[in-house]
Amino acid sequence: MANNIQKLIDLFSKFPTVGPRTASRFVFYLMKLPKEKIEELIASIQDLKNKIKFCSFCFNPFESSTGSNQGEKQLCEICENTNRDRSLLCIVEKETDLASIEKTKKYHGLYFILGGTVATLKKSDIEKLRTKELEERLRSPQSFGIITLFKEIIIATNPTPEGKATAILIERTIKETLNPARNAISGGVKDNLPKITHLGLGLPVGGELEYADEETLESAFEGRK
Amino acid sequence: MANNIQKLIDLFSKFPTVGPRTASRFVFYLMKLPKEKIEELIASIQDLKNKIKFCSFCFNPFESSTGSNQGEKQLCEICENTNRDRSLLCIVEKETDLASIEKTKKYHGLYFILGGTVATLKKSDIEKLRTKELEERLRSPQSFGIITLFKEIIIATNPTPEGKATAILIERTIKETLNPARNAISGGVKDNLPKITHLGLGLPVGGELEYADEETLESAFEGRK
Amino acid sequence: MANNIQKLIDLFSKFPTVGPRTASRFVFYLMKLPKEKIEELIASIQDLKNKIKFCSFCFNPFESSTGSNQGEKQLCEICENTNRDRSLLCIVEKETDLASIEKTKKYHGLYFILGGTVATLKKSDIEKLRTKELEERLRSPQSFGIITLFKEIIIATNPTPEGKATAILIERTIKETLNPARNAISGGVKDNLPKITHLGLGLPVGGELEYADEETLESAFEGRK
Amino acid sequence: MANNIQKLIDLFSKFPTVGPRTASRFVFYLMKLPKEKIEELIASIQDLKNKIKFCSFCFNPFESSTGSNQGEKQLCEICENTNRDRSLLCIVEKETDLASIEKTKKYHGLYFILGGTVATLKKSDIEKLRTKELEERLRSPQSFGIITLFKEIIIATNPTPEGKATAILIERTIKETLNPARNAISGGVKDNLPKITHLGLGLPVGGELEYADEETLESAFEGRK
Repeated sequence: MANNIQKLIDLFSKFPTVGPRTASRFVFYLMKLPKEKIEELIASIQDLKNKIKFCSFCFNPFESSTGSNQGEKQLCEICENTNRDRSLLCIVEKETDLASIEKTKKYHGLYFILGGTVATLKKSDIEKLRTKELEERLRSPQSFGIITLFKEIIIATNPTPEGKATAILIERTIKETLNPARNAISGGVKDNLPKITHLGLGLPVGGELEYADEETLESAFEGRK
Repeated sequence: MANNIQKLIDLFSKFPTVGPRTASRFVFYLMKLPKEKIEELIASIQDLKNKIKFCSFCFNPFESSTGSNQGEKQLCEICENTNRDRSLLCIVEKETDLASIEKTKKYHGLYFILGGTVATLKKSDIEKLRTKELEERLRSPQSFGIITLFKEIIIATNPTPEGKATAILIERTIKETLNPARNAISGGVKDNLPKITHLGLGLPVGGELEYADEETLESAFEGRK
Repeated sequence: MANNIQKLIDLFSKFPTVGPRTASRFVFYLMKLPKEKIEELIASIQDLKNKIKFCSFCFNPFESSTGSNQGEKQLCEICENTNRDRSLLCIVEKETDLASIEKTKKYHGLYFILGGTVATLKKSDIEKLRTKELEERLRSPQSFGIITLFKEIIIATNPTPEGKATAILIERTIKETLNPARNAISGGVKDNLPKITHLGLGLPVGGELEYADEETLESAFEGRK
Repeated sequence: MANNIQKLIDLFSKFPTVGPRTASRFVFYLMKLPKEKIEELIASIQDLKNKIKFCSFCFNPFESSTGSNQGEKQLCEICENTNRDRSLLCIVEKETDLASIEKTKKYHGLYFILGGTVATLKKSDIEKLRTKELEERLRSPQSFGIITLFKEIIIATNPTPEGKATAILIERTIKETLNPARNAISGGVKDNLPKITHLGLGLPVGGELEYADEETLESAFEGRK
């Protein structure tokens, strides 16, 4: 196959969930698209790069109205919205998790996107996460434009092995970061530490007891109401 | 194929989850089993019918030590065990759900097996469930050998559409049954009614926020701790 | 759970494709069956053992009309039927393959059921197959009640790795067996050896070129017509 | 979510096999790519549109070395290669089928890409296929730069219901087109018509007799060798 076709197949193969076969189908699809549609796609990808910024507090990507002043710190719509409950912080693995939670319209606090999970507690693994950035935001949210004292931090990583390992790490990070910091702010009153919570485990809607693992079922019993 | 083979295939095809192809494989499997193994299987099936009774309180099948006095009321190991917390009643759809919950070793109350679910609230559907039997056990558990006043009734049907419809029906049945009964027993004190609870919904172990439906995610947030 | 229930679950767990969870469901299903249905099942399983014989030529199980003269050699309906083309022999892995081929109604020859496949060409593996029995039937089919000289032997093992290894082994067995035997019968005329054939590979009905592996697609091209 | 993000999600959602959830993941993936990688992707998509031509004979896309003389007729590498056997024509549904066949390296003839299949033999359906273009190439291949008299035409549509309906249509088209044309060329000698063939059906590599449908198994028997 022609070199350029192969190159584009290779580039699409790096897209998440895409293998070489699907990448080929994408290329054949593009070949048949009219020129205007191709130009629309290219313009849209370029726009993404030019207009999208990452929120200086939570790392959520958002479309900046003010254009390309890239040095300037900017908050996303969620962080900027003073009607949201700034005493709540929800730590998620990735952007799509934030989007899923927003869709429920039941959570009104702030977020922080970790940028992944760790499989182990090795230093090299941990450094891939935004733990340093989390520490800074916990210590002085005001320097990122957020005036608050967090009352609750929800560690909303997935209940997968990686998500659980990450939750342990993040919980430790939060405690180590906030203990001295809070002491300074609150004059040493220990119980000012925010509550650290985790999402409730249980049967998912549509699930069945018969096929639930024991930990899920235990949690469903403990969380009954 | 020979008539008898076909007949056995038909009988196995009625087993849960078994289609004609699997039923054929069962028959070919049996053909090759040595005579002793066949006799062991037959004896085991006969024993099941002869020795197994259904608990006169919760309908859980159990092996009766006293043999075939079929008229006599008998309790299963769970209902008979006075160390279990008889102030808790967990209502499940079917035997396998009871078995799944027992495996967690975290629930120590009693059970009641409904015998199914309803897809609608039609009378003909409802009559397939053991609602009458549930009413009797709620009204006078002592006449089934259980001395108790239930403090909590857990409706542990599955969070499927059928399970939810059934839960609504059962909750209504419990309230209608216990209100007057309790009044009589407690001298009219209303708040003596047992608490009615439902299993906690949430993300199952191994699940991911990204793929959770909105109701599950909402519940996971509400049930955080 | 009661011992007898557990024992029956264990016995069902040995059925093909059945795991412990499905086995439990079988047991709960049987518990609820009325007594007559249980007796019908037991009688049917007993009949299977009493009336079913394995064809003395092809090993196909069949229902014997003459009852339990177990010493006597008996042919199944297919082998007994003199209208079938006795110059054709189709060697299959197992009973269900024979049944699948019979369903097409396009093959009118005889069969031989090998009783499995080999993963390797080790002696211990080979001895699990009915190769000795195949040799005897190839050498003197008449001693099993089949008067014929095979003109074509179709090795109809599956095109899986095991099926292919088995086909190689069987082809070798046939050649080693028939060469001297035929020589004796035919007065040394070599080309009297039966033709050895294999099922045609190709795209299955409903399949797609895009998802076919290369060998399948090659065969589909070679077998075009 | 920002308008531009949503627009790009919509555009990716139209890619084959991509739904909104996967499209979102593509967008989040692109957001995190460094600028150079985005530019590489955009350049590659642009190149595809600028440099890729469709072969004037078979409609296979290929990279043109001579650039953008778009009026000019050009043959792809396969059609241009005089070492290929130009007496063979293989008619396929789509580009990926051609690619799959080329991978086997066993077919050395020419191709024609129909551009789809028909579910019915309605005129509106048929007009979506390149039947007119096929007729022209069959009548006078020389006007497309191919000097040949086809000896065999392989209709290599998939053995799916649509592929089979399409094969019937294409076979009829070929016969109606070539009969008079051939007569003129060959001076009326009827049997000069090319042989029309279809791919061999059979068990695919890795398949099993037990799960094959009857037509597949019949074909496997007929195609034995």
